[in-house]
Amino acid sequence: MATHLVVLAAGQGSRMNSDLPKVLHPLGGVPLFVHALAAGAALDPDRRILVVGHGAGAVRRAAARHDDGLIVVEQAERLGTGHAVRQALGALEGAEGDVFVLYGDTPFIRPHTLQAMRDRRAAGAALVVLGFEAADPGRYGRLIADGDRLERIVEWKDATEAERAVTLCNSGVICADASQLPGLLAAVTNDNAAGEYYLTDIVGIARSRGLDAALVTCPEAETLGINTRAELAAAEAAFQARARAAAIAEGATLLAPETVFFAQDTHLGRDCTVEQFVVFGPGVTVETGAHVRAFSHLEGCHVGQGAVVGPYARLRPGAEIGNDARIGNFVEVKAAEIGEGAKVNHLSYIGDAAVGARANIGAGTVTCNYDGVFKHRTEIGADAFIGSDTMLVAPVNVGCGAMTASGSVITEDVAPGALALGRARQVNKDGFARRLMDSLRDAKARKAR
Amino acid sequence: MATHLVVLAAGQGSRMNSDLPKVLHPLGGVPLFVHALAAGAALDPDRRILVVGHGAGAVRRAAARHDDGLIVVEQAERLGTGHAVRQALGALEGAEGDVFVLYGDTPFIRPHTLQAMRDRRAAGAALVVLGFEAADPGRYGRLIADGDRLERIVEWKDATEAERAVTLCNSGVICADASQLPGLLAAVTNDNAAGEYYLTDIVGIARSRGLDAALVTCPEAETLGINTRAELAAAEAAFQARARAAAIAEGATLLAPETVFFAQDTHLGRDCTVEQFVVFGPGVTVETGAHVRAFSHLEGCHVGQGAVVGPYARLRPGAEIGNDARIGNFVEVKAAEIGEGAKVNHLSYIGDAAVGARANIGAGTVTCNYDGVFKHRTEIGADAFIGSDTMLVAPVNVGCGAMTASGSVITEDVAPGALALGRARQVNKDGFARRLMDSLRDAKARKAR
Amino acid sequence: MATHLVVLAAGQGSRMNSDLPKVLHPLGGVPLFVHALAAGAALDPDRRILVVGHGAGAVRRAAARHDDGLIVVEQAERLGTGHAVRQALGALEGAEGDVFVLYGDTPFIRPHTLQAMRDRRAAGAALVVLGFEAADPGRYGRLIADGDRLERIVEWKDATEAERAVTLCNSGVICADASQLPGLLAAVTNDNAAGEYYLTDIVGIARSRGLDAALVTCPEAETLGINTRAELAAAEAAFQARARAAAIAEGATLLAPETVFFAQDTHLGRDCTVEQFVVFGPGVTVETGAHVRAFSHLEGCHVGQGAVVGPYARLRPGAEIGNDARIGNFVEVKAAEIGEGAKVNHLSYIGDAAVGARANIGAGTVTCNYDGVFKHRTEIGADAFIGSDTMLVAPVNVGCGAMTASGSVITEDVAPGALALGRARQVNKDGFARRLMDSLRDAKARKAR
Repeated sequence: MATHLVVLAAGQGSRMNSDLPKVLHPLGGVPLFVHALAAGAALDPDRRILVVGHGAGAVRRAAARHDDGLIVVEQAERLGTGHAVRQALGALEGAEGDVFVLYGDTPFIRPHTLQAMRDRRAAGAALVVLGFEAADPGRYGRLIADGDRLERIVEWKDATEAERAVTLCNSGVICADASQLPGLLAAVTNDNAAGEYYLTDIVGIARSRGLDAALVTCPEAETLGINTRAELAAAEAAFQARARAAAIAEGATLLAPETVFFAQDTHLGRDCTVEQFVVFGPGVTVETGAHVRAFSHLEGCHVGQGAVVGPYARLRPGAEIGNDARIGNFVEVKAAEIGEGAKVNHLSYIGDAAVGARANIGAGTVTCNYDGVFKHRTEIGADAFIGSDTMLVAPVNVGCGAMTASGSVITEDVAPGALALGRARQVNKDGFARRLMDSLRDAKARKAR
Repeated sequence: MATHLVVLAAGQGSRMNSDLPKVLHPLGGVPLFVHALAAGAALDPDRRILVVGHGAGAVRRAAARHDDGLIVVEQAERLGTGHAVRQALGALEGAEGDVFVLYGDTPFIRPHTLQAMRDRRAAGAALVVLGFEAADPGRYGRLIADGDRLERIVEWKDATEAERAVTLCNSGVICADASQLPGLLAAVTNDNAAGEYYLTDIVGIARSRGLDAALVTCPEAETLGINTRAELAAAEAAFQARARAAAIAEGATLLAPETVFFAQDTHLGRDCTVEQFVVFGPGVTVETGAHVRAFSHLEGCHVGQGAVVGPYARLRPGAEIGNDARIGNFVEVKAAEIGEGAKVNHLSYIGDAAVGARANIGAGTVTCNYDGVFKHRTEIGADAFIGSDTMLVAPVNVGCGAMTASGSVITEDVAPGALALGRARQVNKDGFARRLMDSLRDAKARKAR
Repeated sequence: MATHLVVLAAGQGSRMNSDLPKVLHPLGGVPLFVHALAAGAALDPDRRILVVGHGAGAVRRAAARHDDGLIVVEQAERLGTGHAVRQALGALEGAEGDVFVLYGDTPFIRPHTLQAMRDRRAAGAALVVLGFEAADPGRYGRLIADGDRLERIVEWKDATEAERAVTLCNSGVICADASQLPGLLAAVTNDNAAGEYYLTDIVGIARSRGLDAALVTCPEAETLGINTRAELAAAEAAFQARARAAAIAEGATLLAPETVFFAQDTHLGRDCTVEQFVVFGPGVTVETGAHVRAFSHLEGCHVGQGAVVGPYARLRPGAEIGNDARIGNFVEVKAAEIGEGAKVNHLSYIGDAAVGARANIGAGTVTCNYDGVFKHRTEIGADAFIGSDTMLVAPVNVGCGAMTASGSVITEDVAPGALALGRARQVNKDGFARRLMDSLRDAKARKAR
């Protein structure tokens, strides 16, 4: 049975005090809306639909960067959640199976919870609503249920005293039969104080048509929505706490977990070590036994088994660090494969390059990959020895086992086993430094007079 | 009506276990005494007087660095707070209006509180004392008041049981009529167990002369004084917590607020983003929409709208980063303007320089600004392209749209649109590297035998 | 009276979810087993014996790195703590005085506690057991004592209800008369459910032979053992909290203590300042008045009085920073003495070198110490001025007061007071940059068509 996702991401989030649309604020290194999609991804969904509105252009671009298979539909006017889901009906035409409605500002729903909702659908409910026991139910809508059968949803303002005493609340997340959803939404009206079309009204409509509505519950923490910067900061802290605990449980060594920041998709292998003050951006995998030293910053990269990275290493997208390779301090690697056992130990920039196995890259080496308009590639062979302060002016190849002399600018290819030099011969001028410093100091003394 | 500040900063702070005078210990990136001055600055004071004593020379120098308009007077002997304020009377000669007495080791008094004291003075009190409700009154002096009229201050050791039960305590901060203060202080004696002249005695003296003394209160947290290193660390944590919350409330995005350290005067624009592990020293402004990436360190600098700084960027005093400019990793900028949209992306030192709009500075570039005695300036025009590992030996100018070749040492000016080269031609020696490595390995093998 | 240590370090630690033997997991920058040895070191022990088992090879190597005077014995089969101590008897042959049995996974026992045990031994007990009052005694063995005389140890499973109500528990740490220990161990049997030889059985055996057994207690926190990664992380946090508080108490200024990480042997002098985000690896001493700025990483080094290090300084083993010297940003120093008042301010690698007093090392300087096989030394004299981007190809000497020109590659010695140049002369090509950029942009435009 196919599954489809509709993620509502049209809200302005005016309480964020920001020009950035709320769902683009970052959590765990990725935009907020990505979390709902990631939870839904575990269900292997067929159609994935993002309903955008406020800041539609920016959200569309972020969506395309994240996953070019996303269907983006725009809700031009903001007339309520029911209206928002209606915008997705075109993209759902002919769909069968389950439609999940998730929220771009509600990042913590677990795949496990969605699976439970799907299972309940499979057991015969036309509609499944996700509820939670609220510690402080406040003005949430209340779920009136009989076991796991949902009778109705009562909005707080319409609730009796007895109903207000119910602590089972509506998260807003639903799973509906794809073939029933259009008919249910069509019956939703905006005949209420706010003049909005509420998605939750479909429960009452379904029940009135004799359809089964079911209830699945999850811990309240999963349903946490983000409305302010302070809530976002708290959500980030919660996200990081879970990510750290999970990494430790899976066998990573974190010397000071509270100083390591994870992204939504960071993967750390067993027995890899992460020292203090490390930031993982999106798209990082660190293999078993690798060691990420202090003050390192990794994004979109892969660190092989037994490799050692940092301190002060910056791995940018496309950095592929081979097994047992070594990336040292004040080194930046971007879009480059570093071969097995190769070393880039100090003060270097390696970008748009391939470095062969066991090659040694001296301190202060730069791949000069940019000519002001185009980017070019550098290829360095296995066992090559790049002397300190070598400028590799791309496109350029250095062959296997070749060397470059310290301080050389390499503009032409170097054959395997060859030595390339590009530097002036040293000349010493006796006594010159002494005379120069004397005259500078004299000048200073004259100035001071 | 004019306002004058007297900040008492003469104490040794022997419980700090330090040779540094207490008021020079740092809080929020500036010496402790600066906080009292900063709170008072909101009143737009006329004369600002710092009373120094212990470590007078060092405190004088710090005061001059902070604000060369400060009047510094020395209390040669430490004979009590009344005696300390008396040292300021010469500097207050002829002053009219309000005199505030603040404390160099009491950093958290808010401008709002001082304003309330000034308002109360304007409403007719000769003297206003700042009090607070103490959670644990201990041995603080008690304020005996009738509404906001202050009857008297009772020292703990002189207090009756009933008086000791009073929880309204004396912070020591006062605001006095400038024309009355000398006469009141003149009447203070050291006829007490400690043989000291107590400032608080002026309340009783004023009352005995029929003058009105009034009470203003503030939360106890504002009156927190620093006496030990542990208290200083706790005060720093409190300062940072407030600064982080304030930045978030004003619309900055802090990915991990607990890892960002603010100075007393940090200003972050709305919708600017600050990543993990960032330190703001004094004198930093980050404009709207700018992005400070992880592991950055900023002091005395300005970051324009839409600029991106870091990770691992160090901006030192005098760094002016233009709108949409880019300062990348392992880059240090000091006393330099970086033009709009210019890029300094990797491993560079730009000091005593101006970089034109849209210029691109290659990796490993250094402005060689120091000849061992003097510092010199480098000027780089708009749209210039500085090749990687260019040494710009100042004083030197590179014109608009000019280029330097990678690895060049530039000692002479480069005309607009020109290319400057200063490097040797590359020579390749076939097979040389292979033979060299073979012989080195042979030598190693011989050594090992 | 001689003291001997036996540290049991043979366990696998299967709950660590790691291939690394438990006692090699790091705490405070050193392997776990080092902490027990360090506590024992305060007793000035004669023989120090480490009993290894699981991962014996790796533990042996770590032990040798830590202290080459350690006697390592292997417990081939894991048959209980009594069996483990028996393996040490050969190494203890002829020993007199006190034998302490400590645990490689129990890092927090204080020297003070061990001293109390030794004192109790000196007062006549053949055996001293370390106990603690457990908040939750659970299944710990219970100590049945009369004052400080220990009657017996009851295992939980053998205990009566009344005995289980006892909250005084066995830590496992003992101090025994060296001459009695072999005889006591010889009587231990494996006649129990687990089929193991329990060290604690020697208490009952001693008592049955009429020997005195005594009790010394310590806070439960000292007896904390590490069994899981989560416990290790908690232990690290506890270790750091204590180290930070101790540093503050001893007169160091920590701007943000929670961001400073100490090793087991870090020594900070009075009135030295440590800024935010600093990591101390093992073997660091920072002298009085030195200043370690933010984002610095120090291991195995010494920082002299008044020196300033960082931000972003990396000091590796063998870095000796002289008084008032300055190590600036993005600078790595390894196995090098930096003379009094010398400056290495920016983007440099100084390894296997000596830098004379007051020398100034320009930005981008590299000591090229590695030829692919051997490491060589660089010597720089007092008052030398090394121009920016100088490559010092070791072995090489630069004399006192000598200079090198920016961008030079120095392969030959430079005499005192001489200037060394090794760079090409600058050539400017008018209009070349303009034409080049035009043609590149044309190419781009053609590509885009």
